[in-house]
Amino acid sequence: MAQRVGIIGYRGYSGAELVQILQRHPHAEPVLMEQRADVADTGGLPSKLASIPATPEAARAEKIEIVFLATPHEVSMELAPAMLAAGARVVDLSGAFRLRTPERYLTSYGHAHTQPALLAEAAYGLPEFCRERIPGARLVANPGCYPTAANLAIRPLIEAGVIRREAGIVCDAKSGVSGAGRKPSLKTSFCEVTENFSAYAVLTHRHVPEILQVSGLEAAELSFTAQLLPIHRGILETIYFRAANGAAAEDIAAIYRKRYASEPFVRVYDAGRVPDLRAVAHTNFCDLGVTVDAATGRGVVVSAIDNLVKGAAGQAVQNMNLLLGFAETTGLL
Amino acid sequence: MAQRVGIIGYRGYSGAELVQILQRHPHAEPVLMEQRADVADTGGLPSKLASIPATPEAARAEKIEIVFLATPHEVSMELAPAMLAAGARVVDLSGAFRLRTPERYLTSYGHAHTQPALLAEAAYGLPEFCRERIPGARLVANPGCYPTAANLAIRPLIEAGVIRREAGIVCDAKSGVSGAGRKPSLKTSFCEVTENFSAYAVLTHRHVPEILQVSGLEAAELSFTAQLLPIHRGILETIYFRAANGAAAEDIAAIYRKRYASEPFVRVYDAGRVPDLRAVAHTNFCDLGVTVDAATGRGVVVSAIDNLVKGAAGQAVQNMNLLLGFAETTGLL
Amino acid sequence: MAQRVGIIGYRGYSGAELVQILQRHPHAEPVLMEQRADVADTGGLPSKLASIPATPEAARAEKIEIVFLATPHEVSMELAPAMLAAGARVVDLSGAFRLRTPERYLTSYGHAHTQPALLAEAAYGLPEFCRERIPGARLVANPGCYPTAANLAIRPLIEAGVIRREAGIVCDAKSGVSGAGRKPSLKTSFCEVTENFSAYAVLTHRHVPEILQVSGLEAAELSFTAQLLPIHRGILETIYFRAANGAAAEDIAAIYRKRYASEPFVRVYDAGRVPDLRAVAHTNFCDLGVTVDAATGRGVVVSAIDNLVKGAAGQAVQNMNLLLGFAETTGLL
Amino acid sequence: MAQRVGIIGYRGYSGAELVQILQRHPHAEPVLMEQRADVADTGGLPSKLASIPATPEAARAEKIEIVFLATPHEVSMELAPAMLAAGARVVDLSGAFRLRTPERYLTSYGHAHTQPALLAEAAYGLPEFCRERIPGARLVANPGCYPTAANLAIRPLIEAGVIRREAGIVCDAKSGVSGAGRKPSLKTSFCEVTENFSAYAVLTHRHVPEILQVSGLEAAELSFTAQLLPIHRGILETIYFRAANGAAAEDIAAIYRKRYASEPFVRVYDAGRVPDLRAVAHTNFCDLGVTVDAATGRGVVVSAIDNLVKGAAGQAVQNMNLLLGFAETTGLL
Repeated sequence: MAQRVGIIGYRGYSGAELVQILQRHPHAEPVLMEQRADVADTGGLPSKLASIPATPEAARAEKIEIVFLATPHEVSMELAPAMLAAGARVVDLSGAFRLRTPERYLTSYGHAHTQPALLAEAAYGLPEFCRERIPGARLVANPGCYPTAANLAIRPLIEAGVIRREAGIVCDAKSGVSGAGRKPSLKTSFCEVTENFSAYAVLTHRHVPEILQVSGLEAAELSFTAQLLPIHRGILETIYFRAANGAAAEDIAAIYRKRYASEPFVRVYDAGRVPDLRAVAHTNFCDLGVTVDAATGRGVVVSAIDNLVKGAAGQAVQNMNLLLGFAETTGLL
Repeated sequence: MAQRVGIIGYRGYSGAELVQILQRHPHAEPVLMEQRADVADTGGLPSKLASIPATPEAARAEKIEIVFLATPHEVSMELAPAMLAAGARVVDLSGAFRLRTPERYLTSYGHAHTQPALLAEAAYGLPEFCRERIPGARLVANPGCYPTAANLAIRPLIEAGVIRREAGIVCDAKSGVSGAGRKPSLKTSFCEVTENFSAYAVLTHRHVPEILQVSGLEAAELSFTAQLLPIHRGILETIYFRAANGAAAEDIAAIYRKRYASEPFVRVYDAGRVPDLRAVAHTNFCDLGVTVDAATGRGVVVSAIDNLVKGAAGQAVQNMNLLLGFAETTGLL
Repeated sequence: MAQRVGIIGYRGYSGAELVQILQRHPHAEPVLMEQRADVADTGGLPSKLASIPATPEAARAEKIEIVFLATPHEVSMELAPAMLAAGARVVDLSGAFRLRTPERYLTSYGHAHTQPALLAEAAYGLPEFCRERIPGARLVANPGCYPTAANLAIRPLIEAGVIRREAGIVCDAKSGVSGAGRKPSLKTSFCEVTENFSAYAVLTHRHVPEILQVSGLEAAELSFTAQLLPIHRGILETIYFRAANGAAAEDIAAIYRKRYASEPFVRVYDAGRVPDLRAVAHTNFCDLGVTVDAATGRGVVVSAIDNLVKGAAGQAVQNMNLLLGFAETTGLL
Repeated sequence: MAQRVGIIGYRGYSGAELVQILQRHPHAEPVLMEQRADVADTGGLPSKLASIPATPEAARAEKIEIVFLATPHEVSMELAPAMLAAGARVVDLSGAFRLRTPERYLTSYGHAHTQPALLAEAAYGLPEFCRERIPGARLVANPGCYPTAANLAIRPLIEAGVIRREAGIVCDAKSGVSGAGRKPSLKTSFCEVTENFSAYAVLTHRHVPEILQVSGLEAAELSFTAQLLPIHRGILETIYFRAANGAAAEDIAAIYRKRYASEPFVRVYDAGRVPDLRAVAHTNFCDLGVTVDAATGRGVVVSAIDNLVKGAAGQAVQNMNLLLGFAETTGLL
């Protein structure tokens, strides 16, 4: 029998993607949880999904096993304890519970964390590196989109000691516009974005501490710039490093291949080949491809994901599968 | 009285841009030089420009002062000596005459240079750094699009000694599709490019030697990746460096501002601000903006141009103005 | 046990979409049928599907039940009889077998049909109007993309006698670029298409006879223009008519609703609401929405499909399901 | 000496285009007129244009000859009389003064016109049909974008009596997103527009009365639908008619050619050829191309403009040239 799972924030891009994925899931029944009085605009077609209020009472009454929070971090910080108290488990897609300490949160988000105990309790939902803690968690912090692509590429290099950390790592990141959310703004207006390309939050992006926390890099070692692509979905990160000990592209591809041998959602390209965004669109894959100039050790790894899938909703369902004991790939291939 | 200037390859994107710019130029009269029998398709409207054959005889007979070669490098290598012999001066938009030695050409283009004497004679047409030699030249090698954006950003940093060269420079470059030329190919087909983003020639792009030659960097110091943006025109390069001696963003912006104080086509942003592609579209400007993290010295400079203007046709007209003794900005503002 | 089905032309846009859909189909096993020696470029990742030669011998030896021809009409005209002779049934996605007579084919395609007996035998694969003949057919002519959207909108109006035919029907059709196929051409190059919009084959499109044949309209009654949208996929047709007998939008919506009550792939919007392309992207739905100005009887119906799904590969799988006795929606919802 | 002209609403798309055009105008000096306290964001570069408050006092003190109102119609309705009282002449780009009677305005805009005397006084600024009244006017109502493209195509057909009006005219109009203005909204958000196409205001667009008023058509004769193209700028209208008296495409092209023989901004294509949006982008041209099926008299004329130029700012400068006695094409070619 299907488990009932609720989605709060289902009109946003991540939330809507979540609903789509869950509708294909054989063991989950998505339930829309309305935050406001206004009903969904279904564009002239009747919606097939019923909705309930986004309240703890409704979650309890409707026997919601898991609540997905596809809400801004301030909203998630308040909803998470309420839903936990109502007996649901929570997968939060916002940044509210990703950083390990209230201090880091304060620095990145500019205001104090109101739920420090939950912050300490939350499991970080990057299964490829933190799978053990997820099944037993009450609250899973779904990783950020940029950090997912970055950490899957960088951490194996650090673990294997195959790069010269003192030479620094550059992560030049590009994201489709859906990463900015659905709320209208001049920056995401069609006429401002089309035939344009722009950098933002140069060296100061809020996701940097999350990359450091998971990858093991120090702040002084990483230069990260976020940039806006005139496309709907996708993140591609071009990551520059200096290889240690004469490691060739084949060596590094082999390191990735070994590290991810049993991971269903990370694909490693032949040495010298790199993924484009088309390869991962509408999938839960993270594709990795590496090139190294043998003479100088300069290296590049390209990491590509769909920001709405592996960078948000798909990874959230991957975490749900772990929470509910389903095969991790259920509904995602 | 207007000087007659010929354009060979006027149906390509750079060539067509050249024709457009020259039609607005008060002292030049553009003459189309046909390479083939087929007449131009003007889409139902009569063309206002007459055309002559793309031959030395026609150039001589029609008193063409300057011939622009908007042709592939192999074609330019053969046409340049022929047009010079016919008494015209030549501005070549291809890569045929940009590198200083036949050896470098062979390495980058994979075949021997057939005009080594002309290669040695050609003036490199980046006015901001090589202005003196251009007015008296017979043959001007118009710079490549990626090198134009890269060298205007990097060379002042090298000259001022404000960066730690041993830490390396990363130039992550993104270009609109027109940079690949007008010849149809799967890689530039709409359905392959739209909603996509891809890296190509990772660390091995043909333009790298041209960047090294002009900027003063060594090969081991520069990591360069070219990437294809789903837009028509524009190049944006995100360039990462490590500042020396505690230089702040303001210091580096000041270095740029001083270096380009009398340059009409380089604009420097306030420290901490960076340009987007919209700012330079359809202009001959190169816009530069720099940010530095004071604590660690990690720095980023963003360099933006329109690849068809400052990266090709606009710069070619800038060179023409120098060759013919017009004010350098004529027809370009 | 899964039936083996072959795809010829699997590298084209329709063919690739077919492979994707079939990989999700529970009862079909897709087999790639190679037309040439060159192997597929999988971009650094190994392909999961084996391939066989696109020959009758291979089809017979590999027990291919159905061969999909995602090939140009000239190629389909030759391959269809060969594959039938090898014992396979054929679903042809080209225009080779859609028109009822060799005369019509000659007029539309400019050359004689070489298989008139097969042309006469072929079943037209628009299940909503021709479902009876499909299950027993050897050869199914999968409908054209423009005709699918047009006929599903127009034929119910004709059948119900709810429009004034003598006032004529205008079908203003817009298609994404994938409708033009994957072969590179200047017309489908990114730089020619982006930020552009253009009409082609004004009043003379090859698909018009197919619309007339199925809808029941006469040539003098229909004005059809095809236009190229700067998007990857989707067809939207804005169809103008004059309502008869004071029929209101609600009346016509009711006619559609009744006609398509048991059709799984046609959705009818509330009167006054119309679909956009987003609503049908990546689906096998045809969405219909109608508006009528009560005072004057001027009416508009908007018909939207994904040209690669309901307009090609999806409908082909719908036909395959009918041929093989599966539920018609299998693998398509 | 240059005339000083003020622009209110210069941050909107039409207003910004106006500033760009006026900066190239040899006899006009654009002055920005600020509506709010906040200063312009120039993206890190200093603005070269000074600004004054958008008040009648400032207009008088600064000797502004003409004020362009690139403001919403409610705002224009209030600003126009104030600026006239301050001694400036006014070119209004909004819909405030285009319709001839307060009744029509009320019907189209849903609220009463507060300046009926000015409404009666205003000259309609479509020079190709109303040139005589413009030079002496105090207030010019710059035409709407859709009506400009429609009326330049339709009115010559009506005047020449070459179409069967009783058969009706269909105008299927498509516009780039800038037509919706710069104010952020979900409908013009990048992710909602890209890879999409949608119809809006089907048969009920606010611009219809303006088309009727100028073209001479009756309401029952015209079916008009507006649609949103995923591009920045451009309007293309596909207009369907039935030719009278056996008129061929050549006959109708000849009618257009004769009608517009001395018009600098209307270009007529060879019969059977139609314009695309690329042909008119960034220009003040309206391009017209016509096709007729000889056997049945079904005809199509395609009309293309740049909505921000001939559909707004360019036409406004054309009107300014008439008001100030400059050659009509000054600054526009």
